[in-house]
Amino acid sequence: MEKEIKIAYIGGGSKQWARIFMSDLAVTEGLSGEIDLYDIDIEAANRNAKIGNSLKNYTNVKSKFDYKVVSNLEDALKDASFVIISILPGTFKEMRSDVHTPEKYGIFQSVGDTVGPGGILRAMRTVPMYEVFAKAIKKICPNAWVLNFTNPMSICTKALYDVFPEIKAFGCCHEVFHTQEFLTRVLEETKGIKVKRNEIYTDACGINHFTWITEAKFQDIDLLSLIKDFEKKYYDTGFYEREGAAIDAFKTDCFAYGNKVKMDLFNKYGALAAAGDRHLAEFVSNRWYLKDKQTVKDWLFNLTTVDYREKQQTILVEETKLMAEGKKKFELKESTEEAVDLMKAILGFKNIVSNVNMPNMGQMPQMPIGSIVETNCVFSHDQVKPVVSKPLPTGALNLVLRNTLNIDLTYEGIKERDLNKLYLAFANQPLCDSLTMDESKELFKEMCYNTREYLDDYFDLDKYFNN
Amino acid sequence: MEKEIKIAYIGGGSKQWARIFMSDLAVTEGLSGEIDLYDIDIEAANRNAKIGNSLKNYTNVKSKFDYKVVSNLEDALKDASFVIISILPGTFKEMRSDVHTPEKYGIFQSVGDTVGPGGILRAMRTVPMYEVFAKAIKKICPNAWVLNFTNPMSICTKALYDVFPEIKAFGCCHEVFHTQEFLTRVLEETKGIKVKRNEIYTDACGINHFTWITEAKFQDIDLLSLIKDFEKKYYDTGFYEREGAAIDAFKTDCFAYGNKVKMDLFNKYGALAAAGDRHLAEFVSNRWYLKDKQTVKDWLFNLTTVDYREKQQTILVEETKLMAEGKKKFELKESTEEAVDLMKAILGFKNIVSNVNMPNMGQMPQMPIGSIVETNCVFSHDQVKPVVSKPLPTGALNLVLRNTLNIDLTYEGIKERDLNKLYLAFANQPLCDSLTMDESKELFKEMCYNTREYLDDYFDLDKYFNN
Amino acid sequence: MEKEIKIAYIGGGSKQWARIFMSDLAVTEGLSGEIDLYDIDIEAANRNAKIGNSLKNYTNVKSKFDYKVVSNLEDALKDASFVIISILPGTFKEMRSDVHTPEKYGIFQSVGDTVGPGGILRAMRTVPMYEVFAKAIKKICPNAWVLNFTNPMSICTKALYDVFPEIKAFGCCHEVFHTQEFLTRVLEETKGIKVKRNEIYTDACGINHFTWITEAKFQDIDLLSLIKDFEKKYYDTGFYEREGAAIDAFKTDCFAYGNKVKMDLFNKYGALAAAGDRHLAEFVSNRWYLKDKQTVKDWLFNLTTVDYREKQQTILVEETKLMAEGKKKFELKESTEEAVDLMKAILGFKNIVSNVNMPNMGQMPQMPIGSIVETNCVFSHDQVKPVVSKPLPTGALNLVLRNTLNIDLTYEGIKERDLNKLYLAFANQPLCDSLTMDESKELFKEMCYNTREYLDDYFDLDKYFNN
Amino acid sequence: MEKEIKIAYIGGGSKQWARIFMSDLAVTEGLSGEIDLYDIDIEAANRNAKIGNSLKNYTNVKSKFDYKVVSNLEDALKDASFVIISILPGTFKEMRSDVHTPEKYGIFQSVGDTVGPGGILRAMRTVPMYEVFAKAIKKICPNAWVLNFTNPMSICTKALYDVFPEIKAFGCCHEVFHTQEFLTRVLEETKGIKVKRNEIYTDACGINHFTWITEAKFQDIDLLSLIKDFEKKYYDTGFYEREGAAIDAFKTDCFAYGNKVKMDLFNKYGALAAAGDRHLAEFVSNRWYLKDKQTVKDWLFNLTTVDYREKQQTILVEETKLMAEGKKKFELKESTEEAVDLMKAILGFKNIVSNVNMPNMGQMPQMPIGSIVETNCVFSHDQVKPVVSKPLPTGALNLVLRNTLNIDLTYEGIKERDLNKLYLAFANQPLCDSLTMDESKELFKEMCYNTREYLDDYFDLDKYFNN
Repeated sequence: MEKEIKIAYIGGGSKQWARIFMSDLAVTEGLSGEIDLYDIDIEAANRNAKIGNSLKNYTNVKSKFDYKVVSNLEDALKDASFVIISILPGTFKEMRSDVHTPEKYGIFQSVGDTVGPGGILRAMRTVPMYEVFAKAIKKICPNAWVLNFTNPMSICTKALYDVFPEIKAFGCCHEVFHTQEFLTRVLEETKGIKVKRNEIYTDACGINHFTWITEAKFQDIDLLSLIKDFEKKYYDTGFYEREGAAIDAFKTDCFAYGNKVKMDLFNKYGALAAAGDRHLAEFVSNRWYLKDKQTVKDWLFNLTTVDYREKQQTILVEETKLMAEGKKKFELKESTEEAVDLMKAILGFKNIVSNVNMPNMGQMPQMPIGSIVETNCVFSHDQVKPVVSKPLPTGALNLVLRNTLNIDLTYEGIKERDLNKLYLAFANQPLCDSLTMDESKELFKEMCYNTREYLDDYFDLDKYFNN
Repeated sequence: MEKEIKIAYIGGGSKQWARIFMSDLAVTEGLSGEIDLYDIDIEAANRNAKIGNSLKNYTNVKSKFDYKVVSNLEDALKDASFVIISILPGTFKEMRSDVHTPEKYGIFQSVGDTVGPGGILRAMRTVPMYEVFAKAIKKICPNAWVLNFTNPMSICTKALYDVFPEIKAFGCCHEVFHTQEFLTRVLEETKGIKVKRNEIYTDACGINHFTWITEAKFQDIDLLSLIKDFEKKYYDTGFYEREGAAIDAFKTDCFAYGNKVKMDLFNKYGALAAAGDRHLAEFVSNRWYLKDKQTVKDWLFNLTTVDYREKQQTILVEETKLMAEGKKKFELKESTEEAVDLMKAILGFKNIVSNVNMPNMGQMPQMPIGSIVETNCVFSHDQVKPVVSKPLPTGALNLVLRNTLNIDLTYEGIKERDLNKLYLAFANQPLCDSLTMDESKELFKEMCYNTREYLDDYFDLDKYFNN
Repeated sequence: MEKEIKIAYIGGGSKQWARIFMSDLAVTEGLSGEIDLYDIDIEAANRNAKIGNSLKNYTNVKSKFDYKVVSNLEDALKDASFVIISILPGTFKEMRSDVHTPEKYGIFQSVGDTVGPGGILRAMRTVPMYEVFAKAIKKICPNAWVLNFTNPMSICTKALYDVFPEIKAFGCCHEVFHTQEFLTRVLEETKGIKVKRNEIYTDACGINHFTWITEAKFQDIDLLSLIKDFEKKYYDTGFYEREGAAIDAFKTDCFAYGNKVKMDLFNKYGALAAAGDRHLAEFVSNRWYLKDKQTVKDWLFNLTTVDYREKQQTILVEETKLMAEGKKKFELKESTEEAVDLMKAILGFKNIVSNVNMPNMGQMPQMPIGSIVETNCVFSHDQVKPVVSKPLPTGALNLVLRNTLNIDLTYEGIKERDLNKLYLAFANQPLCDSLTMDESKELFKEMCYNTREYLDDYFDLDKYFNN
Repeated sequence: MEKEIKIAYIGGGSKQWARIFMSDLAVTEGLSGEIDLYDIDIEAANRNAKIGNSLKNYTNVKSKFDYKVVSNLEDALKDASFVIISILPGTFKEMRSDVHTPEKYGIFQSVGDTVGPGGILRAMRTVPMYEVFAKAIKKICPNAWVLNFTNPMSICTKALYDVFPEIKAFGCCHEVFHTQEFLTRVLEETKGIKVKRNEIYTDACGINHFTWITEAKFQDIDLLSLIKDFEKKYYDTGFYEREGAAIDAFKTDCFAYGNKVKMDLFNKYGALAAAGDRHLAEFVSNRWYLKDKQTVKDWLFNLTTVDYREKQQTILVEETKLMAEGKKKFELKESTEEAVDLMKAILGFKNIVSNVNMPNMGQMPQMPIGSIVETNCVFSHDQVKPVVSKPLPTGALNLVLRNTLNIDLTYEGIKERDLNKLYLAFANQPLCDSLTMDESKELFKEMCYNTREYLDDYFDLDKYFNN
C-alpha cells in the first residue's frame, strides 16, 4: 500500500519538532506527497523546506515528500488530508513574562505553558489564532484530520471543536509515553524484566499534562503494585526514566526530573499521574511542590528558565542553518513520537490504541461532556474513537476537575473577550493558592500589560484594569 | 383544620434552637400533639420539657403540645410524623480543637463547623451518628418527614439519603433568609421602599452556607442591580442587615458582619453569595478573607471564639433553668425561622416555596446528581419538590464545585472509614490553601488525636498516622 | 397594584378562545393596556376587536384594554410584554385530510391534532410559521413572555426554543385541569367531599396531552387510591367529569368521554393519564382504544369529525358577528382557564404552581434534556421555573418516551426539510401500529399531497415521493 | 507464552456450541488447563467431556485441556479464570410455546428467543437462574471473566451486573460478524475486491440482535456507499452472505435469509442493521416483515419451527454420541467465532477490537446509562473497555430505544417478580403491535401457563391472572 497525501503544517518554521516529524515521515513506509509549511517566520520555514527536500536523496529514506513554503493559511490548507498545528505565539519577551513575572509574587512555575499564570496568558494569545484556524479548516479542508501539538493543549483543542464542531481533530502529547517508560523502568528495577513501553498496557485518563494511569500491566504483572518496592530504592534519590539519560540527570538538566512528585502523588492518590514532574507540580497548590526554589530542589525537579530556552533556541537555529546549507548532516531515525504512526492508522495501515486529547463524549463519565480530556482512543481507518476509561479515584478526580473547570472558564473568558472571567480563572489557579486577591489581580494586570502587543486586538485592557 | 402530630426531637436538650421551635409551635394555629425529646444530656431535655409543657397555660398559645423526655432513640421515633435532628457531637473541648488548633498553622476559621479543618473533623464525629439515625428511621418511622438542622448540613443530609434512599428528609438553614433581609435593606437604602423578606422573590442555588442568589426581584425592581448603588454608601463602612441590630454591630458582636465579603464576591462573580460573611469566607482560599486577624478586621467580620461560645452557653443554660423553674418568663412570639411553616405546608395547610437542602435530582443541572444542594423547593401536602434553578455563573460554579467534590470525598472517607481519603479532602480545603502537604498532614493528625474519644470507634488513628 | 401591559395576540381572529381570554382579562383586577390582534383572517380579528373594545362599557369590567387590529407581525410584537400564539394553519380542507384520510387505512383518530398521522401533518404546516414567529420575537421583543396555545403543543414550543434559545416561552393546556376535576369528582363520589380542583395537590409530568398524574392529595387523602372504589361504580358506565355536564354526556357530545380509557390505563400503569380520553387514545397502539368505531364506542368516547367542527365553527362565527354588532350580549365571567392567572403571576401579583410545557432542563430526569415536557412550574415575578417531578412508573415512561422520540424526530425532519425523517416518524406512530410499511408510506404520501398548498414552500414532495 | 487456565462451562452439555469451542481451544496456541463442564443434563456433559479429552491425542492439537464433569455450580466455579455460560432453560415443550403459541394470534416469530412474546417468556425462565450464577460468581470467583452466550443476551447480561456490579462480564454474539461478511460480499460484488471480514473496519452500536453498523470501511472505500449498487443486483432476489452457502440458501435452509430486510432498513434508516434478517424482523412492528407467512416469504427469510429445531437436535445428539464413543471423527479446525480470541486477548496475548454486550457506561451516549448495549470494545490484558460509538441516526435510535426500554422493564418485572410489569413489557413489544390489549393479555396468560413448571417458583400466576 502506498498513499499520497498532502500535509498542511501550520507553524512549519518549528526549530525542533519539525525535524523529528520530517525524520519520522521519511523513515516510515508507504507514504508520499506534499508538505506545505506555513509560518510567520518565513525564513525558518524555508530552512525546514530545504532540509525536508534534501531527505529525498538519503539512502535510507522510504517515504519521499516535497516540501513547499506557502505564504498564507488558505494555500497551506488547500487539499490537505492532514493539518499539523504547532505554533508558539509571542516571542521570548512574552514567554519571559509568562514564566518569570509571577516569581515576584512568590509563584514559581516549572514550565508555565499549560496552567497557572503563564498558561492563562499563553492561552489568551493563542486561542484567538485557533479561532482563525478552525474557521479556515471548516471552509477549505473540512475532512482533513487535524493534529494539534500546541500548548495549552486542552484549550487549543477546545477552540477547534467549539468553532467547528464537526472537525476531525485531536491533540497529541508525549508525556504519557514517558510515564509508560517510567513503568518499564519500574519493572526492570523490581523484577529484572526489560520491555519496551508499547509492550505494556495502560489505562490513562485526565487532562493533558495531568493525565493519570489507573491501571498498568505487563502480561500478568500489575505494574502499579511494583511502585512501592521501587520507591524503597529510589524515592529519596529520584529516578529519571529517559532512555539514554542518567537517572540523576535532573541534577544538571533542567528538563529532567526525579519522579519524586509522581511517586508522592501515587502514594497519596492511588493512581499514577502521567506527565513529567515539572508539569504535574503546576496542577496542584503551589504550596505543595513549588513553594520556593528549595522545595523544588527537594522534590528533585527544576524550574526551566526562559534564558535557558533562549540559549537552546539559538543553538537549534544555528544547527538548522547548517543543515539547510548542507553543512551538517541531518540524522534520519525513528523517534519515540507517535504522530506518524497515528496518521498511518488513520490512513488505514493498522489499528492503534493510544492516548490523545478530544472532547469528552462519554469516555470520562466523571467529567463534563464537552470538556477536553485525554484518554485512550482507537485509531483506525479515518476513525479516532475514544475508549471509555476506568474511573479516577475521587481524590485525584477532584484535583483534575478543579483544573478542568478553570480551563473551561478560561475558554469562556477568551471566547467572550471577558477579562473579568479570565481574572476569576486566574485567581482560582492552584498555582495562585498563596496569593491574596489583590496580589492575583495585580499580577494578572502586570502580565496582561507585559504581553499586550498580542492582546490588544482582542481585549480592552485599559477599560478593565482602570475600572 | 386541626392536626394532631407526633414529633421526635433528636437533640431535644438544645439550649437555644429548642426555645425558638417550641415558641413557633405554640403560636401557630391548628396543631397539637406530642413531642418526644431525646438527648444524651437528659437534664437539658428535662428542662426543655418543663418549659414546653408550661406553654399550655399561656394565654396566647394556639397549638398545645405534650412534651416528653424519652431515653432511647426508638421510643422517640415511634409513630413520629416529623423527626427534628439538631445535635452537636462532642464537647467544647472538641470544638476548641476544631476551631483553634488550625490557628497554629496560620489558619483562621470564622465558624469552623461546615468546611475547612473544623468542618471535616466535625463531620467525622457526626456522620457515624447519622448512620444510626437513618437506619432507625428506616425501621421505625419510614414515612416521617425528617428536618435536619445539624452542621455540617450537606454531609449530614447526604448520610441520611445514602443509608436510607427513600427517606423524606431535607436540611433547613436560615442563612439565605438573612441575605434576603440584606436585599430588603438594599432596597430600602437605595429606593426608600421598605418590605419584608417574604415579599421579594429570589432564586437561590448552591450548597449550604455557600448558596448564591442569582436573581432577586421586588415587583419589577431587579434587586441585584441596586447593589452597586448601595455599595457607594456602605462598601467601605459595612452594613449588618439584621433587624433590630445596629448596622455596625460587627464592631462589638462577633456573630455580626458588615457584608463586605458578600459585596466583594458579588462584584467579582456577578451573583450574591447567600450566607453570613463568616460562613462565606470559609469556602474560598484562606488567603482571600481569612489571611490573618487584620484581614478579617478589614473585611468587617469576626472570628467567633470557642471561649465566647462557652460563655454564651453558660448564660443560656442558666436562663433555661430559671425558665424551667418558672422563675423567668418564657416569651412566646413568632420567630423568623421557617421550620414550623414548612411542617405546616407538609401537613397541607398551605403551599410554600423556600430553599432547603436535598440531593440533586435535576434541580441543579450543573452539579453531580446525588450531591446535596440547596435550592428553592415547593412544599405542599406531604411533598417537597425541588425547583430547577437558574444556572450559576461559571466562576461561582467553580468555587461551589470544588467544595462539593470535597464534601463528597469527605463522605466517602467517613463511610469507608478511610482516613487517607479524609486527609485528601482535608488537604484540598480552600482554607488549607496556604499549607504545605506536611503541614496539612500534621494538622490533620493533631486534630484527629485531639478529638479521638469520638473517633476511635470508627477510625484506626494509630494505624494510619504511624504508617 | 395596577399594571399597564401590551399584549400581542397572534391568531387574534380566534373564534372561541379569544372570547374566553378577553372575558378573563376584563374581570381580573389590576391590569390595563393594549392588545394587538394579528391574524390572516382580518375580518375575524376586526370582530374580536369590536367585542373587546365594547367590554370597557360593561359595569362589571375591572381591567380595561384597548383592542387594535394590526396587519403585520412586527407591529403586533412591538413593545409587547406578552405574546399569545394561538393559530390554526390550513383550512377545514386540510384538517379533513389530517383527520379522515387515515380512515381509509383503518386508522381512526379521535382528535388528530397532536400525534398520529394528523399530528405529523399539522406539525409540518405549523412549525415553519413558528420559525418565523421565534425570529421576529428575538428581534422585536426578546424579553416578552410567550404563551403558546397552538397544537401540536410540544413541537411548537420546541421550535420556539430551538430558533431562539433565550426565549421566555411556555405552552399552556387545560387538559390536566380537567383530570384534576375528575379527581375532585372521584373524591366526591367515594367520600362525599366536594372541593375545587385548585384545592387538591397533584404532581404531573409527561408530554402535552399525555401527561400523567403520579400523586394526588386532598389534605391527607390519597386521591389515586380512591379510584379503585370509584371504578366499582363507574368503570362500566363511564363518568364525564365536566361541571355542568351530564356524566354520560359522551353519549351525545362528541367532545365528551367517559374516562374509561383513563381508568383502564390507571389500572395497568399505576398512574393517572391526565388528558381527555380522546387525546390519550392517540398516544398508544391504535389496536388498543381506536381499533374501529365499535371499539371507540365500547371505551365510551367519540371520534370528533371535521364536519362537526365545521358546523360548530359556523355557529361561532355567526355568534361573534352578532356580538361584534352589539346584537348579542357578550357574557363576562371568569373561566376555568389559567392564562390570565399565569400572566398575573409573571407580573408579580402572586405565586402559582401550575403545569405547563417547557424544555426539559432537569425537571424530568428520565427524559432527554431539551425535549419539551409538561410538569409543574412555579410562576412568580418574571419567572417560570420547572419543579422536579416524581418519576413515572417505567411502563408509563416507555409509552411517553416512544412519543417523545417521535416528536423530536418529527421536529428534526421539519427543521431539515427532510421528508424521509418525517416518514420514519410517521411510520413509528403508535396510531400506525396496524399498518404495513407500504401502507404507511402510501398514506403519508396521500396526506402530504392533500395539504401540499401549505407544504410546497418547505418540502419537495415530488422529488421525495417519486424517487 | 503458555498460560494455564481453568474454565467453568455452565451449560457444558451443549450440543453444538461446545464442539466449536472445544475445537477452537484445541487449535489455538499457548493455552492449557482444565475445563469443568456443568449441566443439568449430565449425560450430555459426559459426552462432551469424552470428546474434549480425546482431543489431546489429535496430531494438530496445540493447546491441551482436561475436561471434567462436575455436579454442582460451586465446584465448576472454583478457581475459574473464565466462566462460560450458555444455557437453555426449558425443553422443546416450552420453546414450542414460546415460538408457536403466538401464531394463534397472528404473531409469527422467526426466532422467538430475544424479544417478542417468546423473548419475554424465555427471559422469565432464564433470569432467575442468572441471579444464582451471579451470586455464586461473586462468592467463589469474583475475578473471573464471564462470557455469556445465552439468549436473551441483553437481559442475561443485565442480570449479571445488577446482582454483582463488579463482575467482569460481557455477552458475545456472532451476528455482527455475519453482517461484516455481508459487507465483504458487497465489496466483492460491486468492486471485485475479495477480503476477509477482519480486514474491514466497522463501527457498530445498538443492542444485541439489533445492532447497527454506522460506518464501514475497507481502506479508503466506504462500504455502506456500495450497498445501493449491490441492491441493483440483489435487492429483489436476495443474497445470503455465508461463505460456503448458496446465495439463495434461504430457499431451502430455514436459518438462512436473503438480506432483503437488512437492505430495506438500510434504505430507510441510513445505517446497516447488523444481525440476521430473522432477528431484525422481530424488533420492529410485526406488520412490517412478519405480517404473515407470505410476507416472510416475500422478504426472503424463514420462520424457524421448533419441529425443525427438535429434529436437528436429535441429529446432533446422535452425532455427539458417535463422537464420544470414537465412532465418528471430530474435525479440529478454527471456526469463525471469536470467544477464544477474546479470551486470549484478556490473557494478554494480543489486543483486539470487537463488539460485545456490556452495560452502557458512556459508550452509547444516546442510551440510558446502565442499559446493556453492544458496541466495539478494546480487549487487552485483563481489560475490556468499551469504545465510544458514533451516534445512531435518530430514526434507528428510536427503534432501538423502544426495545431497550422494554428490556429494562422486563428485567424490572422479573427482578421484582411482578407479572403486571411483565405484561406491560409484553404488550409493548413491536411484535404485539397488531394485538388488542385483551388479546395480548390472553396470549401472555396462555404462554405463562404453558411454561409454568419453570415459573411457579418465582411468580404467582394464579393470583395475577385470576384477579
